[in-house]
Amino acid sequence: MIERIAILGTGLLGTSVGLALRAARFGGSIVGWNRSPEQGQTALKMGAIDSLAVDPIEAARTSQVTVLSVPIYATLDFMEKLARVLGSEHMVTDVGSTKRLISEAASRLYNTPERAAFLPGHPMAGKERGGAALADANLFRGAVWMFTDDPAAQRSPHSAQLVKGWCEWVAAMGAKTLDLDPVRHDELVAWISHLPQFTATALSALLEEEVGDAPELKDVGGRALREMTRLGASPYSMWRDIAYTNTEAVDRALAALEQRLALLRENLRTPELRNQFEQANRFRRE
Amino acid sequence: MIERIAILGTGLLGTSVGLALRAARFGGSIVGWNRSPEQGQTALKMGAIDSLAVDPIEAARTSQVTVLSVPIYATLDFMEKLARVLGSEHMVTDVGSTKRLISEAASRLYNTPERAAFLPGHPMAGKERGGAALADANLFRGAVWMFTDDPAAQRSPHSAQLVKGWCEWVAAMGAKTLDLDPVRHDELVAWISHLPQFTATALSALLEEEVGDAPELKDVGGRALREMTRLGASPYSMWRDIAYTNTEAVDRALAALEQRLALLRENLRTPELRNQFEQANRFRRE
Repeated sequence: MIERIAILGTGLLGTSVGLALRAARFGGSIVGWNRSPEQGQTALKMGAIDSLAVDPIEAARTSQVTVLSVPIYATLDFMEKLARVLGSEHMVTDVGSTKRLISEAASRLYNTPERAAFLPGHPMAGKERGGAALADANLFRGAVWMFTDDPAAQRSPHSAQLVKGWCEWVAAMGAKTLDLDPVRHDELVAWISHLPQFTATALSALLEEEVGDAPELKDVGGRALREMTRLGASPYSMWRDIAYTNTEAVDRALAALEQRLALLRENLRTPELRNQFEQANRFRRE
Repeated sequence: MIERIAILGTGLLGTSVGLALRAARFGGSIVGWNRSPEQGQTALKMGAIDSLAVDPIEAARTSQVTVLSVPIYATLDFMEKLARVLGSEHMVTDVGSTKRLISEAASRLYNTPERAAFLPGHPMAGKERGGAALADANLFRGAVWMFTDDPAAQRSPHSAQLVKGWCEWVAAMGAKTLDLDPVRHDELVAWISHLPQFTATALSALLEEEVGDAPELKDVGGRALREMTRLGASPYSMWRDIAYTNTEAVDRALAALEQRLALLRENLRTPELRNQFEQANRFRRE
């Protein structure tokens, strides 16, 4: 039923969506757009999109489904612009890492019988480096793809069908879908995604200061050090909007980790250290 | 020249040493001992050792090289006992994760022309779970194996030859050797090994409290969460002696990370966050 999809933003995620759709035998057309045309050309050469649009709004207008795969504030900006030109024959979705602001905008600008549908989405997949060239048709295989849809959405039958169709394609890409309230989503990802990222950034930045002048010492650390600092390679450009749009929850999570580290530090020679190891072990029980 | 090696402690590391020696075509005999006989039987069945000793002191006395692969305080205890019965025809080495106390004991109890040689060693290899069953002949391949030898050691020609021979076997196991001062070693590993471990323990223990009641949420986190908490499975029994014997350096490293996390937290919406991401990126530059 979905015959034409527009992917606005052909970075790592957008290009991977195109490749995953093709791998799942999506037979319709896929038009792509990217702010920097080189990333768009890479996505085109990789077969993630069939054509590269010059005007993203026009690409969305001539497609049934539009996937916004740009940073959060760019997503919010596109949501405003697209709401003015799309109607009940369209649906829009996104892949942004925080969902409260996007879900609020969706309820305000979309999801009435006359308007386009908007389904806020968040695939828990990515890499520590971005860009179309690293895109992967299997990026979403086994990953959880969260939706924070508005239970009060009033969609036209046509756009409701598009939403249903898109969810089927997400499943066909190999992802497991999970419905969540947007505020609960943002609190949850603060713990399981944003906290690990900011911890890796803090640890990597600290180690750069302490041992960065002796690159051979990084080899000494082995697998444990590599894993604990891999996310240190994540660019600020990918995380700026997340820090801005989930500040309170990330603040709480970071403060809680600071306190937990202090608890370990103050108990390096007391039996409380055993309790902390055992609690950590429980998190990793098979 | 080395024809008989005793491995005291056939856990993950000791058993891996036996397997790696055999993989490197060590043709002599290997006797093993373990406090709990089951681990010794596992090592025997895996071919890491040829025989299981009842008396570890006797096993060392009848071998040329003894490898201590037990926790730090057990290593120090064996060092005292073995110094009384071994002589210039013997050498002893260890695989402990902190080296200051062990190197001090080595200088006090070993390394005179009449006494046995002691070479303090630390292979940067391991797994988040211990035990002979997880041992691996390739555990040391590509890993750094540090030595914190005393430059003032006065060894008999015979025991000096044994030390040289052991270093050749370490290289044959695929490890890269690195000589360090023991105090510098302990400071370095506080940053690149102990800090990552205690961070993973703190993060895992915290997450167990926050989301541990919903095991399905662990799947949501994906690869990033798995990597950042893998070391959370490490048992207290492996880390207790490290916390006790490197307390000051670990304390400093943990306090520095607490401060760094607070710096990020206080700058979630300022340009300083970019500086921290860029400094972290430099640590991970290829």
